[in-house]
Order: sequence, then structure tokens, then C-alpha cells
Amino acid sequence: MNTFQVPIGVSNRHLHLSLEDIEALFGEGYTLSKKKDLSQPGQFACEETVTIVGPKGSIGGVRILGPARKESQVELALTDAFKLGLQIPVRDSGNLENTPGIEIINGDRKISLKRGVIAAMRHIHLSVEDAQKYGLKDKDIVKVSVDSPRGGEFNNVLVRVSPNYALDFHIDTDEANAFGLRNGDIATVIY
Amino acid sequence: MNTFQVPIGVSNRHLHLSLEDIEALFGEGYTLSKKKDLSQPGQFACEETVTIVGPKGSIGGVRILGPARKESQVELALTDAFKLGLQIPVRDSGNLENTPGIEIINGDRKISLKRGVIAAMRHIHLSVEDAQKYGLKDKDIVKVSVDSPRGGEFNNVLVRVSPNYALDFHIDTDEANAFGLRNGDIATVIY
Repeated sequence: MNTFQVPIGVSNRHLHLSLEDIEALFGEGYTLSKKKDLSQPGQFACEETVTIVGPKGSIGGVRILGPARKESQVELALTDAFKLGLQIPVRDSGNLENTPGIEIINGDRKISLKRGVIAAMRHIHLSVEDAQKYGLKDKDIVKVSVDSPRGGEFNNVLVRVSPNYALDFHIDTDEANAFGLRNGDIATVIY
Repeated sequence: MNTFQVPIGVSNRHLHLSLEDIEALFGEGYTLSKKKDLSQPGQFACEETVTIVGPKGSIGGVRILGPARKESQVELALTDAFKLGLQIPVRDSGNLENTPGIEIINGDRKISLKRGVIAAMRHIHLSVEDAQKYGLKDKDIVKVSVDSPRGGEFNNVLVRVSPNYALDFHIDTDEANAFGLRNGDIATVIY
């Protein structure tokens, strides 16, 4: 059995937008404003937030993450999805076939995504160097153990490897709260 | 190592009220109306719901569970507590020292609890017969394993034994969503 330590990044509900959807929501030629850099190189939280609307409710102040992507994607905790009245699958990022759509509102502008709402499958970002160091490759599945009063073990954690990645274990707010975790806490990868 | 199967009961946010607080919120001599029986014998969900208010927000439609208790207690998921702006500890039921208070509203009636808001420590209810059968006693700590796509293992699960209990593993909505679980799903106790 191999183990190594990994810092935890807690993802609050957020969305990625295509260039087309950014223009539809904010106007022609609009550019998102960076609020702060995220742990993954090149990724950033934007100043802009929107309201998302499902069949049973809405949630305001949902943060947009940049840069723009090829296809818009909304990442929610299952707690959020229940509030909105959406049934969403647990998926790795970008795998959007057969996912529900949602309405996105900015002031008096509105778009309707036909698909793209998911709960993110928990995953570990690894640089190519870290992957070599730990003997892991893209799409491996590992376990992550958390030693806290509300701790335990996450099975089926997806490994993602890219030259653009920095070591980080990404979970959503349901997962963080279930295990009493905060951003920057440390967990142990087991494989 | 011993194991046995246990059904899962998912607790949504709810509250228990003292007789005094029931009267303050609903009027002198008021009796709560049973909506449906819960899995634990004698416990029931009431028709009555209230709004709870914290420093940063409020949540409506929070269900009261009966019968009345000696002291009022509000059980929230940590996701709820963040929304309300409350920092709440993970506690076993009834252990309310040094817990935050909250405002509870029913129409134009309002009370302010001085304490009593907790996240419930995940726990297994066992009848005395089940406890003898499985060789467990009140306050033992066990693990619970969940075999699902989003599964894993919960450490530090509290065992509660009483003649009034029926076999059930109680988790909150954060814990259920983190592991993709629904009411009535089956988990495995490990000890």
C-alpha cells in the first residue's frame, strides 16, 4: 500500500461559461474580471456572479470561474440540486452527456442551458512530476482517508494528471461538511 | 472483525421543542399535530414547521419533531449553519453545553433559544436485543462502510442502545449527499 499527503480544496457551487454564454449574459465583447487566482494554475474566480434557477427554486450569487470554456458547465452540491429541484449526476468535469439544463440570470439577461449541470466527482489534481513521483496516472482511482473527529474514507477518487495541475484534492461542500473539512486541511491518499 | 447490515435514515434539518417553547410559539395549551411516525418508536414528524433565523440568513419550513423534549434542540447540516452564519459543533443529541442559540419564528410569534443548535453526530440506533446480538453497547464507536459509486467509510459512528430504539443508521443531508445515499439504503457496520 502507498500513501501520500494531499491538501484539500473545497469547491463551492460555481459555473464555467462558454464565450457565447458570457456574451449572452453580459453583452457583446464582455470580458470576465479576475477576482483571485485558484489553486490550479490559470484558473481564477471572477468578480461576476449569477442567479441559477431550477424547477423548484433559485440560488443567487453563484460565482463564475474563468477562463471561458468550450461548453458551459454548472457544478453544484447535491444539497443545491435538491433545493433547485434538479436530479444531477456525479460526473468528471466536461462529461456532460445526459445532464440536466438550467436557467442562468444576470439582471435582465437570461440564458437557458440545455445541459451541463453536474455534481463534480471528487478528484485529485496531480502535475506530471507528482504523478511520476507517486506512480499514478490519469484516470486512476484511489482512496482518500481523513483523520478528523468526523473523518473517514472516500472511495472512488478520480486521479487527474496534467502539466497544468497542482497537487490538490477537490471535494464539494457536501463532502467537506460531511467530514468536517475546510479548505487547506490535509488528507491521505491511499492506493 | 465483525460486520452487519444497517438501514440508513437521512435526517433533514429539524427541531425538537420543549413544552414551554411550544406554547410560546403556538399558544397556551397547544398540542403538536402528528404528520407521520418516524423509524424510532414513539418519535413523529409534526405538521408544524417554523422559520429559523441566524446572523446571516434564515431558513423556512423547518419541521418540528415530536414529542416535546425537556430542552429545545435544533439539528442542522453544516451547510445550513453556513447559510445562517452559525458555527455549530457536532454533538450527540441532548449534549447542548456551549452550543449557539437561534431565533425561531412562527407567524408573529418568536422565541430566542439561548443555546441548542447542533450538527448531530452520526449514530446507530440499536434495540437492547440487537445490541446483545451484535455484541455492542451504548456509546461504543464503530465504522460504517458504504458500497456505492460515491461510497466510502464513516469513522467515529456513535452507537446508541435503548429499549425504545429500532435498528437505523442516522446521518444528516450533508453526509447522505457526500456519499450519494437515500433514506432506506443499506450500509455495513464494521467493528
